[in-house]
Amino acid sequence: MSNAQVLYDFTAEPGNNELTVREGETITITNQGVGGGWIEAQNSRGEVGLVPEDYIELPGGGRNVEHVAAPAAAHAPDLSFFDAFAAPANNTTQNQASNGKDPWSVWNQDTTGGSSNNWAAQPEGTITGKSAAPDPWGSTAQSHPQAYQGPGAEDDEWDDEWDDVKSNSESGDGGAIQRGGATGSSMKISLNKFPGFSKSGPELFLLCKQPPKGKEKITIYMGEVGPVWSYPEAQLDCVVADPKKGTKMYGLKSYIEYQVIPNTTNRPVNHRYKHFDWLYERLLDKFGSAIPIPSLPDKQVTGRFEEEFIKMRMERLQGWMTRMCRHPVVSNSDVFQLFLTYKDEKDWKTGKRKAEKDEDVGVMIFSSIEPEAPDLDPIEVEQKCDQFSRFTKAMDDGVKDLLTVGQEHWKRCTGPLPKEYQRIGKAFQNLSSVFTSSGYQGEATLTDAMTSAGKTYEEIAQMVAEQPRKDLHFLMENNNEYKGLLGCFPDTIGVHKAAIEKVKEGDRLVAASKITPQDKVTMAKRVSTMSYALQAEMNHFHSNRIYDYNRVMQLYLEEQVKFYETIAEKLKQAHSQFTTM
Amino acid sequence: MSNAQVLYDFTAEPGNNELTVREGETITITNQGVGGGWIEAQNSRGEVGLVPEDYIELPGGGRNVEHVAAPAAAHAPDLSFFDAFAAPANNTTQNQASNGKDPWSVWNQDTTGGSSNNWAAQPEGTITGKSAAPDPWGSTAQSHPQAYQGPGAEDDEWDDEWDDVKSNSESGDGGAIQRGGATGSSMKISLNKFPGFSKSGPELFLLCKQPPKGKEKITIYMGEVGPVWSYPEAQLDCVVADPKKGTKMYGLKSYIEYQVIPNTTNRPVNHRYKHFDWLYERLLDKFGSAIPIPSLPDKQVTGRFEEEFIKMRMERLQGWMTRMCRHPVVSNSDVFQLFLTYKDEKDWKTGKRKAEKDEDVGVMIFSSIEPEAPDLDPIEVEQKCDQFSRFTKAMDDGVKDLLTVGQEHWKRCTGPLPKEYQRIGKAFQNLSSVFTSSGYQGEATLTDAMTSAGKTYEEIAQMVAEQPRKDLHFLMENNNEYKGLLGCFPDTIGVHKAAIEKVKEGDRLVAASKITPQDKVTMAKRVSTMSYALQAEMNHFHSNRIYDYNRVMQLYLEEQVKFYETIAEKLKQAHSQFTTM
Repeated sequence: MSNAQVLYDFTAEPGNNELTVREGETITITNQGVGGGWIEAQNSRGEVGLVPEDYIELPGGGRNVEHVAAPAAAHAPDLSFFDAFAAPANNTTQNQASNGKDPWSVWNQDTTGGSSNNWAAQPEGTITGKSAAPDPWGSTAQSHPQAYQGPGAEDDEWDDEWDDVKSNSESGDGGAIQRGGATGSSMKISLNKFPGFSKSGPELFLLCKQPPKGKEKITIYMGEVGPVWSYPEAQLDCVVADPKKGTKMYGLKSYIEYQVIPNTTNRPVNHRYKHFDWLYERLLDKFGSAIPIPSLPDKQVTGRFEEEFIKMRMERLQGWMTRMCRHPVVSNSDVFQLFLTYKDEKDWKTGKRKAEKDEDVGVMIFSSIEPEAPDLDPIEVEQKCDQFSRFTKAMDDGVKDLLTVGQEHWKRCTGPLPKEYQRIGKAFQNLSSVFTSSGYQGEATLTDAMTSAGKTYEEIAQMVAEQPRKDLHFLMENNNEYKGLLGCFPDTIGVHKAAIEKVKEGDRLVAASKITPQDKVTMAKRVSTMSYALQAEMNHFHSNRIYDYNRVMQLYLEEQVKFYETIAEKLKQAHSQFTTM
Repeated sequence: MSNAQVLYDFTAEPGNNELTVREGETITITNQGVGGGWIEAQNSRGEVGLVPEDYIELPGGGRNVEHVAAPAAAHAPDLSFFDAFAAPANNTTQNQASNGKDPWSVWNQDTTGGSSNNWAAQPEGTITGKSAAPDPWGSTAQSHPQAYQGPGAEDDEWDDEWDDVKSNSESGDGGAIQRGGATGSSMKISLNKFPGFSKSGPELFLLCKQPPKGKEKITIYMGEVGPVWSYPEAQLDCVVADPKKGTKMYGLKSYIEYQVIPNTTNRPVNHRYKHFDWLYERLLDKFGSAIPIPSLPDKQVTGRFEEEFIKMRMERLQGWMTRMCRHPVVSNSDVFQLFLTYKDEKDWKTGKRKAEKDEDVGVMIFSSIEPEAPDLDPIEVEQKCDQFSRFTKAMDDGVKDLLTVGQEHWKRCTGPLPKEYQRIGKAFQNLSSVFTSSGYQGEATLTDAMTSAGKTYEEIAQMVAEQPRKDLHFLMENNNEYKGLLGCFPDTIGVHKAAIEKVKEGDRLVAASKITPQDKVTMAKRVSTMSYALQAEMNHFHSNRIYDYNRVMQLYLEEQVKFYETIAEKLKQAHSQFTTM
């Protein structure tokens, strides 16, 4: 038994054998060998429970406290933002209200704060402070910094709380899980991942020595639309399926494992959410300067019930993986292939260590890129860059507008509108039953028809409430994905703008003898390479965008047509029951 | 020039040469020969203007002040209750909001106050105080009592303000005319029209002498459904059309004249609103105890613009006339025939005087009724009466419920819903125009299709906003008519209940020598006649109700089917513009 100092506040989750502790408090370690990132401790009042080991400073100071960032927001507040939209208590509509809950509220918050800041006032040539901040939960984050799992950490031992499905997530109306804050959709380029980046920016690449021969090359061709990545003959794809709940620590903690089945091997591999997160970090490190890597959908995933939550997360992980599979550069990378096709635990661990040691990250990705085209004029480079910046900003606005409108429409379709149709239906049926009581003969044809019409409007109410899940949902999901993608562009474009600024300074730097005239030539050549990469990426983006919006608009309209046709058909049926007199 | 005392407050309408005066004020008559019920007067400050002559006590006291009731609410407040529903300023939706204004707000007010009181706590055997009150404008009436035009008054000289179309009714957004209060839908049985009624109630008929021979008879037959009125072979019908604006008093006052064309003569006669009102009063006097005579639609008629107001009033006068035409007893009456077929001004005036002198009014209408069936047991009479009372009360509730629901639906369909569809449409078009700016080739198919989809949603917005006028309107109008009719039943049924109570008292009255044993037998026989009349009227009501609801429900559903089919068709068109990739 030894004493330890508490570094951060930790609030125990009821029923989980945990112990609430406060920063600065001294606790007594009662069992350091619990495992899973937990220790058992006793407080001054004699209460015993589990505390995350990263939250305390163990005696002997073996831990590098600087590395302790955060077991992020160990217990996100169980705030239900659906409550605000929930229809007033009404036996029949309450179900609909919960069927049709609104998973986009977080996006909307995001619209007015969060990642929209990325666009707000981005100083040219710098990574925006906001998205580069180490805390991806932004303004709504809890006070714990995020735990950073250094290379080689046994990932199975520390349980990411975001991965856990809360045992109380089904406990009643107020139990919707709001996971995290509002900045989830923007790409986080973590500056300390490639030291010196923030000091030297893109000149790390602009002025680096020629990369060693034999290095993996990323080729850019000139296609019909301009520079394009080299696309594989067969498109990689994968299915994320079959979520299974596992437990550890004697059932104290639970997690969900998903099967990921690539179309290349057709062999499923298992991954927990944290593995996806690890992959995301690797892809971001490696490609983030050239390719927007959208955040995982974690913090946007919400659900009133565990099952819904898992389903929604899986759907969004699927969307994320599909997007990554579709990217010719990302999908072709070693780390991505490892994730999809590792053979066994040993293979996975070896691959992981290798990926984490990859030094070809950050701006150095551009050193792998070889455009098969003549160098570009720096003025053209700048023009292209500005054009992309304008376009992505405008699209970001457009997408957010659609999300806001869609969210409101969702609310109406699942709240007041079906309630009203239901009331119309009830009013018809009510009047019909009054008529039945008239005692007048020959009433039955009218009253049967009116009852039937009333029931039809009740059916329509149900249809209206369920419809958003069938069409608006996909429109919203698609736009949400694009909002996430577009949120990465300010960072990506920022890298380019910084490089352009450096090239513009070329003459001055030569005059000041900071670089040689040869360096200046090299810089111009390399910024041209960067521009080809950006153009190839934009062309990839456009082509995907056209495909995605075409698909999702078709789906939306198809379902809308079906919806209105079905209503018309039902009403026709109802109409036919009246007699023409 | 002589002085006069002001009896009631009168507020001048700006621009109409009128003079504001206060009760108790002394004014100087400057011209007593203005005509049209007006005199010209000067106040103590030297201001000169027109004042209604009924508002002042003329020198010499020639006027019978007791007869002065009210030039009703000379200037109804120009309150626009649409303002409350009007969408927030938005160029495109504002039109829709005014197209789709909600003419039922008054009904709704009515639901919670006004005529619903008729049902509230009706003392058996009495005419309800509320509907018998001399002031038909109820709680929202101004402080002026209503001018009573006694028999023989030259109706063309006094201008009923309700008939006038205000010269400022078109003056801007706030200019909607709210005419009168909330009790318009209930029948007003004016007690002082048949003196002694309120003291003796139905015994006037129950104990009257045998009517003179040769009197017009109303026969009741036994039909399949029970007692029925004698229906004419050809149904009377009429068209109310072609409203024309006329002016008088040198253009100072204006009125609207309608053409009424009966299907019997096909010859149009002209009537102003006040003539309809005169007819209503005559029918109410004559038939009100046996037949519910719904109020004219005046106080419910609202409209932002003069044209709309006239159209709406005409539509409702048509509805009222059609209902009266359909009634075999009403349509066959001399006064109704006079109204439809008078030959010339002289004929009209003679007929009018005759009708106003008709003494066969109030409960005495039952003396004209001859059921061709054996007398009914008083217990059966009471059971029937109670059954009708329950039914009409239940239907009144059902109708009001439907009106409330319909009103809310109207508001949604003309307010927030089209606004939302419009925003969806705009969001699609906006995104499409962002896409167009991408500079990426092969964008046009998608952007054209998205723009088209966006426009489709704008069209849908328009359709949604306009739809209530095409279907809900008729459902509402029908229910509003029935609300008016049902509002008359408490009075009609009250007469019957009072008669039943009298018959129940028979033995006691005989014992107290208030009536003879023969009187008691006569009373039982006559209450049986009253019951046949009530049954015939209920059967008439039921048969009309089944016809009306069958018709209006069919129309509603037909239009709803068309509406949803059109939307589906439009969306199908929009969908077809996307390419399958």
